[in-house]
Amino acid sequence: MITRKDIHKDFTDKIKVIDGGICAVSKVKVAGVRDGKYGVSIIVCKNSDVAGVFTSNKVIAAPVEYTKNTIEDGKLSAIIANSGNANCFTGDQGVFDCEATVEIISKIFEIPKTEIATASTGVIGRKMPMDIITRLINQASEVLENSNNASINAAKAIMTTDTVYKHASIEVTLGNNQKVKIGGICKGTGMIAPNMGTMLCFIATDAIADQKILKESLKKAVDDSFNMVIVDGDESTNDTVLFFANGESKNSILVNNKINGSDIDRNFQEGLNVLCKDLAKQMAQDGEGATKFIEVEVRGAKSKSDAQIASKSVVKSPLVKSAVFGGDPNWGRIVAAVGYSGAYMDPDDITIAISSNDNLVDLVLDGEILAFEGTANLENAELIMKEKSIKIIIDLKNGKYNAIAYGCDLTYDYVKINAEYTT
Amino acid sequence: MITRKDIHKDFTDKIKVIDGGICAVSKVKVAGVRDGKYGVSIIVCKNSDVAGVFTSNKVIAAPVEYTKNTIEDGKLSAIIANSGNANCFTGDQGVFDCEATVEIISKIFEIPKTEIATASTGVIGRKMPMDIITRLINQASEVLENSNNASINAAKAIMTTDTVYKHASIEVTLGNNQKVKIGGICKGTGMIAPNMGTMLCFIATDAIADQKILKESLKKAVDDSFNMVIVDGDESTNDTVLFFANGESKNSILVNNKINGSDIDRNFQEGLNVLCKDLAKQMAQDGEGATKFIEVEVRGAKSKSDAQIASKSVVKSPLVKSAVFGGDPNWGRIVAAVGYSGAYMDPDDITIAISSNDNLVDLVLDGEILAFEGTANLENAELIMKEKSIKIIIDLKNGKYNAIAYGCDLTYDYVKINAEYTT
Repeated sequence: MITRKDIHKDFTDKIKVIDGGICAVSKVKVAGVRDGKYGVSIIVCKNSDVAGVFTSNKVIAAPVEYTKNTIEDGKLSAIIANSGNANCFTGDQGVFDCEATVEIISKIFEIPKTEIATASTGVIGRKMPMDIITRLINQASEVLENSNNASINAAKAIMTTDTVYKHASIEVTLGNNQKVKIGGICKGTGMIAPNMGTMLCFIATDAIADQKILKESLKKAVDDSFNMVIVDGDESTNDTVLFFANGESKNSILVNNKINGSDIDRNFQEGLNVLCKDLAKQMAQDGEGATKFIEVEVRGAKSKSDAQIASKSVVKSPLVKSAVFGGDPNWGRIVAAVGYSGAYMDPDDITIAISSNDNLVDLVLDGEILAFEGTANLENAELIMKEKSIKIIIDLKNGKYNAIAYGCDLTYDYVKINAEYTT
Repeated sequence: MITRKDIHKDFTDKIKVIDGGICAVSKVKVAGVRDGKYGVSIIVCKNSDVAGVFTSNKVIAAPVEYTKNTIEDGKLSAIIANSGNANCFTGDQGVFDCEATVEIISKIFEIPKTEIATASTGVIGRKMPMDIITRLINQASEVLENSNNASINAAKAIMTTDTVYKHASIEVTLGNNQKVKIGGICKGTGMIAPNMGTMLCFIATDAIADQKILKESLKKAVDDSFNMVIVDGDESTNDTVLFFANGESKNSILVNNKINGSDIDRNFQEGLNVLCKDLAKQMAQDGEGATKFIEVEVRGAKSKSDAQIASKSVVKSPLVKSAVFGGDPNWGRIVAAVGYSGAYMDPDDITIAISSNDNLVDLVLDGEILAFEGTANLENAELIMKEKSIKIIIDLKNGKYNAIAYGCDLTYDYVKINAEYTT
């Protein structure tokens, strides 16, 4: 039988949700302004250490190349991001436009160009409308603030097909009882539309950490969050996640509270994981055309990688996604998607439940179907499938590894949005 | 610039399309009967050599397990296939039902049970309705024929969500100028629905060949055809392809006309490739909810595998599929799908064209966009996108390897079919 469990429960007293978004971290000043489909966000974070993760697509937008280079020395003082144009597939002109944008920020804020990162999202294959971008940068630069509202404005200014802005912030009590804050903004509807669905995410902390540690911590968090979000499996040319630390709290994340051989404080790592999962869920919930949020938890896998590929396979399956849209507790499609995922599994052991809110029902137990016609299990399962947020729990009973993937249903509106959008 | 080329042109005088389907091969007698959603096909092919390829899903239906065992010794005299019930996830009862079905065929046709293969497609997780299946077997066994009509009936009887029956047949002139025939039937809408979309395919030849050679030849053909069809990327628990040779032509496929170190006559291999591609295209065209057929040819890849993953990535991309449904020549989504496929590519070299019938237009040339607003290229591209059959040609300009993948658009009806289908 499947039972509920909260994998974060060990940390509930260590991680507190707070207000502020990216501005929960003091001294981080941000602004965001829009003009129709174009928007500009500025984040000023002087003398921060920084690490980033970027798209693995072989087609890479100019700002991604630029930012990879500029953060190589680990220092960051500002980020300039725009929506409406991805500055991708734009040749040499794209590189010039990137440099021009950075130049403007450098002049306004008197920051060395080598400490400025840039990111773009929007249509690809068209030149940057530099007149509009320049005007928006000048406007934004006059309203920088460290406030919850400023974080929301910055989150709004980078939206494209997003229907809601996305930001989050927490306070973490480290192993030595000192407190640090982490906050971030992001946009994206799930690594989805090469044209209009890039994922951008900027996360700040007031902890002390150098690039190496930030990178290690970010990579762990991203693997369990953004890399587990699948709306349609397409991957953008512009995906960018930047994580920076300004040290304002005077607390290092390297304290005496080790986990798995890492020097990173385990409460800090869990806090960053929770924050990134929160943002990842916000993206999945805002998936193009989505009417339902789907969480797929795979337990008992032989390896972490098996747990990840099995859960992603289910959340990605167009047949499972269509079934969720139709409110059908179709365990057969779930079993088949696990079966072709490549993860080790024995059909005689597989156990599947679905849940929503406080309701949980077993569909398959040790390879035996419990939810067939006329059973209370099927009736209950059909009730659960009517909810807006559905969790599918799969126990492979082969090992000790777990993973959770996030996604949404496949709807008429997904097809409509993506069929009608014109190059 | 992309130019048209017919990769089969060297073989046009060696491969002739003929009538007959699987019955183009003499002495192969078949029948198919239906009763509502259930159907039974019988193929009698005494004293044939046989090879097969099967689903790689870890959840495997009882008849797949059964047939893998029974054909191990390379001998086949009959195939019994049913639609309506996949006999999958049915435990020990599923195995008993498989054996019972084979027993009936063994008695009627006086064939050893060890020479009988079985295949099922339909709903999973429900017991086989043995009374109906038995009745249909008895009916079918009385109308066996070697005729074009019988081939069509057998193809019809295994249909599930298929909207048209699928069969094909050719005559091949071998390197020694002798002639052999190859014919087959299949069902499936593209390795698609674990519940109702299994791919089954049975191919006959009157050539002489043992299991080892049949397997080598079949594997090559399947890699370029059925394995290149993607409707939604889901893979069934029941996929089965059987290829058998009854030697009636007295001509061996091992003649003095080697290709790539293989002993198989190259005309025979090309013939089997063409036949399987024909059946594969019929499946892609009949994809669930499809309004348009998509062919994606990748040229100039560094390796065969690169060409395959790049072409499959494009044909699988929900964004590309939605764009085709919407008639949008969205080269950006094509570039991005190649970019994340994992294939080696340089964005500065990529060249993309689309074509339909005799119309061909370049969208991107050596990384430069040709089809932007106001150009004749874009206007022409939009005309092409209105056609029912669209070919996307991508030249990576990195090497000499090519591959073609087959698929269809993503439509409201795909979502409707799969949202409303109930477990």
